[in-house]
Amino acid sequence: MYHHISSYRVRYADVDQMGYMYYGNYSKLYEIGRVEALRNLGVRYRDMEQNGIWMPVYENHSKYIKPAKYDELLEINCKLEIIPSTRIVFTTEISNEEGILIHIGKTTLVFLDEKSGRIMSCPEMILEKLQPFFE
Amino acid sequence: MYHHISSYRVRYADVDQMGYMYYGNYSKLYEIGRVEALRNLGVRYRDMEQNGIWMPVYENHSKYIKPAKYDELLEINCKLEIIPSTRIVFTTEISNEEGILIHIGKTTLVFLDEKSGRIMSCPEMILEKLQPFFE
Amino acid sequence: MYHHISSYRVRYADVDQMGYMYYGNYSKLYEIGRVEALRNLGVRYRDMEQNGIWMPVYENHSKYIKPAKYDELLEINCKLEIIPSTRIVFTTEISNEEGILIHIGKTTLVFLDEKSGRIMSCPEMILEKLQPFFE
Amino acid sequence: MYHHISSYRVRYADVDQMGYMYYGNYSKLYEIGRVEALRNLGVRYRDMEQNGIWMPVYENHSKYIKPAKYDELLEINCKLEIIPSTRIVFTTEISNEEGILIHIGKTTLVFLDEKSGRIMSCPEMILEKLQPFFE
Repeated sequence: MYHHISSYRVRYADVDQMGYMYYGNYSKLYEIGRVEALRNLGVRYRDMEQNGIWMPVYENHSKYIKPAKYDELLEINCKLEIIPSTRIVFTTEISNEEGILIHIGKTTLVFLDEKSGRIMSCPEMILEKLQPFFE
Repeated sequence: MYHHISSYRVRYADVDQMGYMYYGNYSKLYEIGRVEALRNLGVRYRDMEQNGIWMPVYENHSKYIKPAKYDELLEINCKLEIIPSTRIVFTTEISNEEGILIHIGKTTLVFLDEKSGRIMSCPEMILEKLQPFFE
Repeated sequence: MYHHISSYRVRYADVDQMGYMYYGNYSKLYEIGRVEALRNLGVRYRDMEQNGIWMPVYENHSKYIKPAKYDELLEINCKLEIIPSTRIVFTTEISNEEGILIHIGKTTLVFLDEKSGRIMSCPEMILEKLQPFFE
Repeated sequence: MYHHISSYRVRYADVDQMGYMYYGNYSKLYEIGRVEALRNLGVRYRDMEQNGIWMPVYENHSKYIKPAKYDELLEINCKLEIIPSTRIVFTTEISNEEGILIHIGKTTLVFLDEKSGRIMSCPEMILEKLQPFFE
């Protein structure tokens, strides 16, 4: 398994009138989690995109356990539990300042060849970097 | 079953650099779908909230079939397939201008008594209005 | 002068924990105002963009007079007071359900030739359609 | 003068189909700038709010010099050039990875007594902490 931890401060822009982070804004935290997890492996999504490899989201499942509140510093734990194929599945566990797990997201993305518009396999470059974590 | 149709024009603010609506923004469309479905029944969420009944999201599942693109006028079909209990489950089917189903969301919310902070049953007022659709 | 009126329902996604629409979200209302004002003239921004004409924002001034609140149906009055040159200036006046002016925005955009990356004059096609309103 | 520097990584969620950060999203960067500038002084906005002092935005002026692009690590320089009275004015200068100034924002907020709903003077606690920077 490969995992990487990022952090995120909840902003006024994120919070609704219940004082909770709006349910749609967790998607941005998943994005931060997976992009930083890839960067930590040495893979920049912006480079992939410039090389014609897109990663659109195919499926997402979110579980809201407890609300995230304004100004809290959240911990984003992004996990890759399975070696990617044509799909890559990131599990995002979000904890609040007291270390309590408040949210779980599971996001499936596909690899898309921009030119042909076709689904493709996970680039070798990513597989090689993940290999050591799955031995 | 009860269902209600709303529409939504995809804005520049919604779209990412792939030219697709950003995956997190579908949550706003589910919100529009369910709030307008309730309004159509004669229930305004703002009144519920002022009466101390909150409806935080508990779970969400999203399936991205095809991308929504800039300036498309989407159709949001919000369905209630089961009579709500302490939970209410909205299924949102989104179609593009050509009538093609591009996205499905399934959102579970709970009823929360703001004062006590406790989960409560679906208010009678909503159940009464839904009754005719489930006979 | 040319002006066009659109409407916008304030969503939960828009509102912060003061119960006010978040100050950054008015930008989306200006966008709706100007895009619908152009559409009403027979100009679709998506077509312009496909023809290689971009309209990035150059300057914006916002005045927050009164807050917009959750679920209010706002009126967006988008005005063009000067014939556009290399710049186009939209004034957006937003009123709440009681008809009270709550917000004024003034947004300056430029016309950009995507290929050359250079500022260009307002396309003839827009000028022709605006002409009758400035006689 | 008091100033404080924060940083922000441009996310996919922030960028539009021109590949530029959407013009409305700079507001979030101003927010990060001023909240972190206050935190660096020892003032947490969340504490102020819990003590019944709100800071709604009254006016904003934005100048878009160059676009911010996906994945860029921006520098947010938040400046307080005048001692606050009933208003506080933050100037936000945003630079890109090459150190080029790409954006300037000027945001005026007021101090509001939540209970009375009235404008109030800047709390002593903030003035004391700012004093050394204005001597």
